Amino acid sequence: MTGAVPTTSEAQLTFVLVHGAFQTGSAWADVAAALRGRGHVVHTPTIAGHGPNAQLDLTHADAVDSLVAYLRENDLSDVVLVGHSIAGTFIAKAAEEVPERIKRVVFQNAVVAADGNALAEEFPPEMAAVFGHVDPAQGFILPFEVVRERACNDVDLATATRLYAEMSPIPVAYMTDRLNLEVFYDLVGTGKLRTSYVNAVNDIAMPPGEHAWFPRFAHRLGPLCRILQLEGAHYVMTTRPEELAETLVQAGRD
Amino acid sequence: MTGAVPTTSEAQLTFVLVHGAFQTGSAWADVAAALRGRGHVVHTPTIAGHGPNAQLDLTHADAVDSLVAYLRENDLSDVVLVGHSIAGTFIAKAAEEVPERIKRVVFQNAVVAADGNALAEEFPPEMAAVFGHVDPAQGFILPFEVVRERACNDVDLATATRLYAEMSPIPVAYMTDRLNLEVFYDLVGTGKLRTSYVNAVNDIAMPPGEHAWFPRFAHRLGPLCRILQLEGAHYVMTTRPEELAETLVQAGRD
Amino acid sequence: MTGAVPTTSEAQLTFVLVHGAFQTGSAWADVAAALRGRGHVVHTPTIAGHGPNAQLDLTHADAVDSLVAYLRENDLSDVVLVGHSIAGTFIAKAAEEVPERIKRVVFQNAVVAADGNALAEEFPPEMAAVFGHVDPAQGFILPFEVVRERACNDVDLATATRLYAEMSPIPVAYMTDRLNLEVFYDLVGTGKLRTSYVNAVNDIAMPPGEHAWFPRFAHRLGPLCRILQLEGAHYVMTTRPEELAETLVQAGRD
Repeated sequence: MTGAVPTTSEAQLTFVLVHGAFQTGSAWADVAAALRGRGHVVHTPTIAGHGPNAQLDLTHADAVDSLVAYLRENDLSDVVLVGHSIAGTFIAKAAEEVPERIKRVVFQNAVVAADGNALAEEFPPEMAAVFGHVDPAQGFILPFEVVRERACNDVDLATATRLYAEMSPIPVAYMTDRLNLEVFYDLVGTGKLRTSYVNAVNDIAMPPGEHAWFPRFAHRLGPLCRILQLEGAHYVMTTRPEELAETLVQAGRD
Repeated sequence: MTGAVPTTSEAQLTFVLVHGAFQTGSAWADVAAALRGRGHVVHTPTIAGHGPNAQLDLTHADAVDSLVAYLRENDLSDVVLVGHSIAGTFIAKAAEEVPERIKRVVFQNAVVAADGNALAEEFPPEMAAVFGHVDPAQGFILPFEVVRERACNDVDLATATRLYAEMSPIPVAYMTDRLNLEVFYDLVGTGKLRTSYVNAVNDIAMPPGEHAWFPRFAHRLGPLCRILQLEGAHYVMTTRPEELAETLVQAGRD
Repeated sequence: MTGAVPTTSEAQLTFVLVHGAFQTGSAWADVAAALRGRGHVVHTPTIAGHGPNAQLDLTHADAVDSLVAYLRENDLSDVVLVGHSIAGTFIAKAAEEVPERIKRVVFQNAVVAADGNALAEEFPPEMAAVFGHVDPAQGFILPFEVVRERACNDVDLATATRLYAEMSPIPVAYMTDRLNLEVFYDLVGTGKLRTSYVNAVNDIAMPPGEHAWFPRFAHRLGPLCRILQLEGAHYVMTTRPEELAETLVQAGRD
């Protein structure tokens, strides 16, 4: 943040941006720079089980623990906790642990799992079927062709190839562990946890229609969920970082 | 209209812009200025039962009467009659009374009520349930939190607060009176009344999905309804007045 | 292509752009110019049964034959084969004949017919009913009012009138011939034919909702269909040629 000066009078927010599957905190680099340029504080932790050489015999709870530990170790409060893609389940479970540290949870094309579901169960049946064939020792990663067509639909081949080259498998249990989200839904339903849903309208990582990100997952956050949409596809943090930063401010502010 | 010169050769239109619930004609100030700047004639009447100190023991028919009276008193003809939000029902009923004065009715994120329904019945059940608990003497207004998250989702807190400060309750009967719209649907079905539907794509005052503004209400206007969409949320007349003016011209012209 | 220089290093593509009903290859003039300006090769054949004085006693197979003949006579290979509107069925059937010449089929607000269906059966019932009353000797064309409100919703009357003046009837059998698409769906399902779907979000030629272009038709192309969206309505090739050219490049490239 060398010399960056906020150009608006917007109140400073503290963002914790949680990357999606196969990626690390570096996925947010451009958005973090844009937010810092506007005067906000930004953290981009890498969740356990992600990144090259990550441990692959972890459970979903381990991922959540690593996020909660990050929030505690940095003694963060009044956090706008943003989750992308499968990280929707990490931020929901983390919010159950440390609701007092959180200003608002923001789901950005992220899974809002139904109570009792595993992440895999939130994907269309044809995708969910994939997980039965994955070797836990190898971890789980989608083939390039799927990433290229469904998540990189709006970028050129060079960008898609670069993004994929930076990806690595995650623990299979992240997709298959059943999630108890009773506390999360109670916090949301009683107004103790505020929520926003951000939808990039060309994001087809979940296929359009019945299984689309939106409005399926936003509905689960109830009538006071603040909804915002922007152009872009699944890696909008790479293709439109300034617009996404603006939208995250809109999602996170009072 | 001091010195404003139309920059296009578009034919002059006469707009009557009808505000939504809790607001007054002043809600359209910026759009009206934009339209006048393009050479159009613009009226922004305040409907009975709206505004500070409004009479709250009125019926839906009283609101319609006030709009029809405005059209007659100003002897307006060839009118592009635009209704926002609940005003969709005011313009539909007014069109039944004075179809000969109307060029086209334009519903802008507005309710197109089914024949026989009350406005309340067009809202999701959880919102409709609210109306049973409203004291008619106090009128009906949504709590700030709902307006902020569902209708002001894309503006900052200062703007949301200002918009809400300018709002006032409306007669409860506007929401609960059953509406006979047989004549309206006959006019539309026989091609005697032309219609357009304008949808601001981030408007979640009606929740996305089954109960969304769009395409639910546009469908009711039949196969010759002209549909247009633009960026923005429920108060797009405040956030994007130039774009909305352009879209209303597109909606209203021959 | 006088002096036009590609401004990016994007790989050269060979496009064959297939117009929709009532139109001819000239419908693509502005998009073709934009693509050529970026260094791509563009063909815009007119399909049999289209254009002034077209033969009207043709079958759907005749239309497909004329497209296949064009690809063969020009010995085209590695083609990005784009179809608009009803041409979705022409490109699907042509792909069955000469898959070896095709890099990718791109449906741009185009019908992806279900195997065994006629084009008419892909329209809403109220539109499909129209075809029973058409005199085959006169061919089929939609009335101006429908074209103006459903396909020209975002243009002014002068543009709509000009577009319609350039239109001419097509053989009725194009709409009513049942289409065997087994081979097409086998090519897609086995990954031998790549597909993209491009959706102009304000295109209401198919009505929004259950019978909308999108995601209805994209779903039929399976999980590896690359989906892209842009602003604009049914004649986006006329209203936003540069944006459509950019989107077709995104849809067609590796």
